[in-house]
Amino acid sequence: MSYTEIAYEVADGVATITLDRPAKLNAFTSTMADEIVAAFDATDADPQVRVVVVTGRGRGFCAGADLSRGASTFDASSGERAAEQRHGLVDGVPRDRGGVVSLRIAASRKPVIGAINGPAVGIGATMTLPMDVRIAAGSARFGFVFARRGLVPEAASSWFLPRVVGISRAMEWVATGRVFDAAEALDGGLVSRVVPDADLAGTVRALAAEIVENTSAVSVAVSRQLLWSMLGAPGPWEAHRLDSRAIDVLGRAPDAAEGVTSFLEKRPPVYPGQVPADYPDIVPPWPPRTS
Amino acid sequence: MSYTEIAYEVADGVATITLDRPAKLNAFTSTMADEIVAAFDATDADPQVRVVVVTGRGRGFCAGADLSRGASTFDASSGERAAEQRHGLVDGVPRDRGGVVSLRIAASRKPVIGAINGPAVGIGATMTLPMDVRIAAGSARFGFVFARRGLVPEAASSWFLPRVVGISRAMEWVATGRVFDAAEALDGGLVSRVVPDADLAGTVRALAAEIVENTSAVSVAVSRQLLWSMLGAPGPWEAHRLDSRAIDVLGRAPDAAEGVTSFLEKRPPVYPGQVPADYPDIVPPWPPRTS
Amino acid sequence: MSYTEIAYEVADGVATITLDRPAKLNAFTSTMADEIVAAFDATDADPQVRVVVVTGRGRGFCAGADLSRGASTFDASSGERAAEQRHGLVDGVPRDRGGVVSLRIAASRKPVIGAINGPAVGIGATMTLPMDVRIAAGSARFGFVFARRGLVPEAASSWFLPRVVGISRAMEWVATGRVFDAAEALDGGLVSRVVPDADLAGTVRALAAEIVENTSAVSVAVSRQLLWSMLGAPGPWEAHRLDSRAIDVLGRAPDAAEGVTSFLEKRPPVYPGQVPADYPDIVPPWPPRTS
Repeated sequence: MSYTEIAYEVADGVATITLDRPAKLNAFTSTMADEIVAAFDATDADPQVRVVVVTGRGRGFCAGADLSRGASTFDASSGERAAEQRHGLVDGVPRDRGGVVSLRIAASRKPVIGAINGPAVGIGATMTLPMDVRIAAGSARFGFVFARRGLVPEAASSWFLPRVVGISRAMEWVATGRVFDAAEALDGGLVSRVVPDADLAGTVRALAAEIVENTSAVSVAVSRQLLWSMLGAPGPWEAHRLDSRAIDVLGRAPDAAEGVTSFLEKRPPVYPGQVPADYPDIVPPWPPRTS
Repeated sequence: MSYTEIAYEVADGVATITLDRPAKLNAFTSTMADEIVAAFDATDADPQVRVVVVTGRGRGFCAGADLSRGASTFDASSGERAAEQRHGLVDGVPRDRGGVVSLRIAASRKPVIGAINGPAVGIGATMTLPMDVRIAAGSARFGFVFARRGLVPEAASSWFLPRVVGISRAMEWVATGRVFDAAEALDGGLVSRVVPDADLAGTVRALAAEIVENTSAVSVAVSRQLLWSMLGAPGPWEAHRLDSRAIDVLGRAPDAAEGVTSFLEKRPPVYPGQVPADYPDIVPPWPPRTS
Repeated sequence: MSYTEIAYEVADGVATITLDRPAKLNAFTSTMADEIVAAFDATDADPQVRVVVVTGRGRGFCAGADLSRGASTFDASSGERAAEQRHGLVDGVPRDRGGVVSLRIAASRKPVIGAINGPAVGIGATMTLPMDVRIAAGSARFGFVFARRGLVPEAASSWFLPRVVGISRAMEWVATGRVFDAAEALDGGLVSRVVPDADLAGTVRALAAEIVENTSAVSVAVSRQLLWSMLGAPGPWEAHRLDSRAIDVLGRAPDAAEGVTSFLEKRPPVYPGQVPADYPDIVPPWPPRTS
C-alpha cells in the first residue's frame, strides 16, 4: 500500500506509523483514518513486526479533526459523510470515524506505544487511549476539547478514558474541555513518562527493544488480547478459564520450552513462534461487537 | 421548594447546595436526604444551572448519619424506618437512604463538584463518590467508618469507591474504618486537589467557571451520562455505538456549528443549546436499574 | 493439617501464612498450592482469625514456578499434570494451578495483607493480586515474566492486574516481562507502601492490629465480598440492592448497636459477631463461577 497522509516504516522489529501532515499539525482526515487502519492491518500481518509505535511528524502529534469545512465539519448532511458510510452503519447511522480507528488499534495483535511528540487534541488525544503505553515529550499538549465544539468525546473514549485515568480526572478533562500540558497528563496517569523532546525517540526505541529482545511474540499477542478483554469481564473466572486454555496450549508449545531453557541457561532467548502464523485460538475476539 | 437542612443558591451558572446543620457538623438525616434529592431535581430542571457544587456549612462537610437515636440508629424496626419506606422497596426491604441520594447525584445532568470543607465521614464520605470532582480543604477529614459501626459501606459505595481510588486503597480504608486526613485522601486519589481552607471556595468557583464559560451544556450533559455509564459497560463497542449516534445528532446541532466557528474565529463561544430542553435521547438512563 | 511447604501460625487475631521453601526462594509447587488453599480454608473457619498475612521465609517472597523439570515445566503432557487434574477441568483442560490459589484467596472472608519481603516473580507476583493490600520491603522485586517464558500471565491476573495498577502499567509490565524494584511497584500502584526491610513485619502487624482492634468481623467480611464483587458489576444499582439488604440485616444485629454505643461512649468496641458463625447471606458468592 502506498500512504499519502501517514508514513510507515519497519526496522529492528518495530513498525513506526507517523502521522504525516506536518503543515496542518497532522490534523485528522478520512484518508488518514483509512491509512491508519491499513497500517495496523499490515503490522498484524507482518511477522517481522513485534511492536508498533505511533507518532507525529513535525511539531504536532495530531491537532484533531481537520476543521477546514468550518461550521459544517461534523454535520451529517455534509459531503464527507459519504466517505464515512463506507465503514458501515451502527444503529442506522454512519460509524464514528474516530471509533473505526480506535477499535482497530484496540484489536492490534502487537503492542502499541504512543510517542506523543506535540499537541494531541480531540481525536488526536482519543486515538491514543487504546494504545498500551503513552510516552510524552515535554512539549506535548492534550485536550479532550469536545465540549468546546458542541460534541462528545468519541473514538470510544468514554469507555477507554475512565479506565486509563479514572473517572474523576476523565470528567474534569471532558467537562472543561481544557488543553493541558505534559505534566498534568503525567499527574493524571494519561502518560507513563514525560521526557525531554530530544529524548522521546530514544526512550520509545529502548522500551520497544526491551519487548523485541526478551519476549515471545505469541505470548505478547495473547497477553494483550487477554488483559484488554478482561477489562470488561465481570469477574476473574473468565480469566481463569482462558488461563487454563492458554497454559494447556502454550505450555506445550516450543516458545515455553525455549523460555524456560534460555532462562535456566542464562542466555538470550530465541523464540520460534510468530504472529500471526502461530497465534492460537484462545481469547475470543476483542473488542467484542456487542451491538 | 423551601429547604430546612440544606441551603440552595444559584449564581453565575453555578448552583451551590450547602449541607446546613452546622451545630451537628451537618449530620445526615432523612430530611436532608430528601432535600438533596429535591435540589438535584431543581438543578437538572433549571437551564441556568450549568454546574452543581456541594459543600457544608461551618467546620464540617457532613459528619455522617445522625446518631441521636443511639444504639437503634440503624435498626430496621425503629421509628424512622417508616420514613425510609417512602423511597420504595428493593428485594422486599426499604431502600438504603444513602443510596437514594448517591444514585440521584449519579444521574445528575449537570457536572457536580464536591467542595469538602471539613470532616466527611460515613455517608458524608460516600455521598461524594458519584460527584465528578472532589476538592478538599486542608482541614478536611475522611472516613469510611462503617466497619467501626457494625455496618457496611452504603450509598452504593462498594461500586463507586474502588472505581475512584482502586480496590486496594478502598479495601484498606473500609477494612480499617480509619479516619484520615486530606493528604492521605489526595495520595489515594479520593480528591483531585487539596487547597488551604481559605482558598477552597475560590478554587471551586474557578473550576466551575471554566466549564460555564467554555462549553456547551448539551455536550457536557451527554458526556457525563456517557462516561459514567461506560464505566459499567463490558467493552468499547457500546461506546462506539453511542458515539456514532451522538455525532449524528450533535454534529448537525447548532452547538457544534458554534463550537467550530467560535474556535476558528478565536472568540468566546455562545452556545444556544440548553439542558434539559435540548438534551437528546442518545445515552440510555444511567444508573440503569438492573434489579 | 500439617504443612510441609508453608508455615501457619495464629496470634493476636492474625493468621500468618509463610511460604516456606527458603532454599528455593519459596518457588511454587503443586504441594504449596494445595497448602495455601488449605490454609485459607482454615482462616475462614477460625473465628479467632480476623486478618490473614502472607509472606515468605528468608530472602524471597516467591520466585515463581519451580523450574526443576526444565523445558517441560509447563507441558500438559508431563507427569505433574495429573496432580493438577484433581482441581477439576475447565473447558476440558486442567484448571490453571495458580488460578486455583488466586481464586481461593479472592474468596477469603478475612482481609488479606501481602507482606512482600523479597522477589515476587511469576505466580509469586500474580498470587498477591487478589490480596487486599500489598506492602513491600525495600528489597522486594516484582516480575510478570510470563512473556519471557512463552506463557501468558495466569492466576486470573489478566482480570486482577489492570484493576489494581491500570491497563497501561499492566501492559508495560506484561509486554516487557521486566523484573522491577519496589520503587517502580509503588509508583505503579502495585504496592501501597515500601518500608525498610527491618520494618516490614512491624508495619504489617500495625495495619492488622488496626483492623482487629476497631472493627466488626462480620462488617469486614461482608464489606470485602461486597467491594470485590462490585468490581465486576455493571452499575451501582446492584450495590444499592445489596446495601439495602445489608442495612436491613446488619442494622438490627448486635454489632451495629455496639458500634454506635461504643462510639458515643468513646470506649473501645467489643463486637459479639464472629465469622464464619454470624456471616449473613447477603452478598452472592464471589468470584462467581461464570463459565
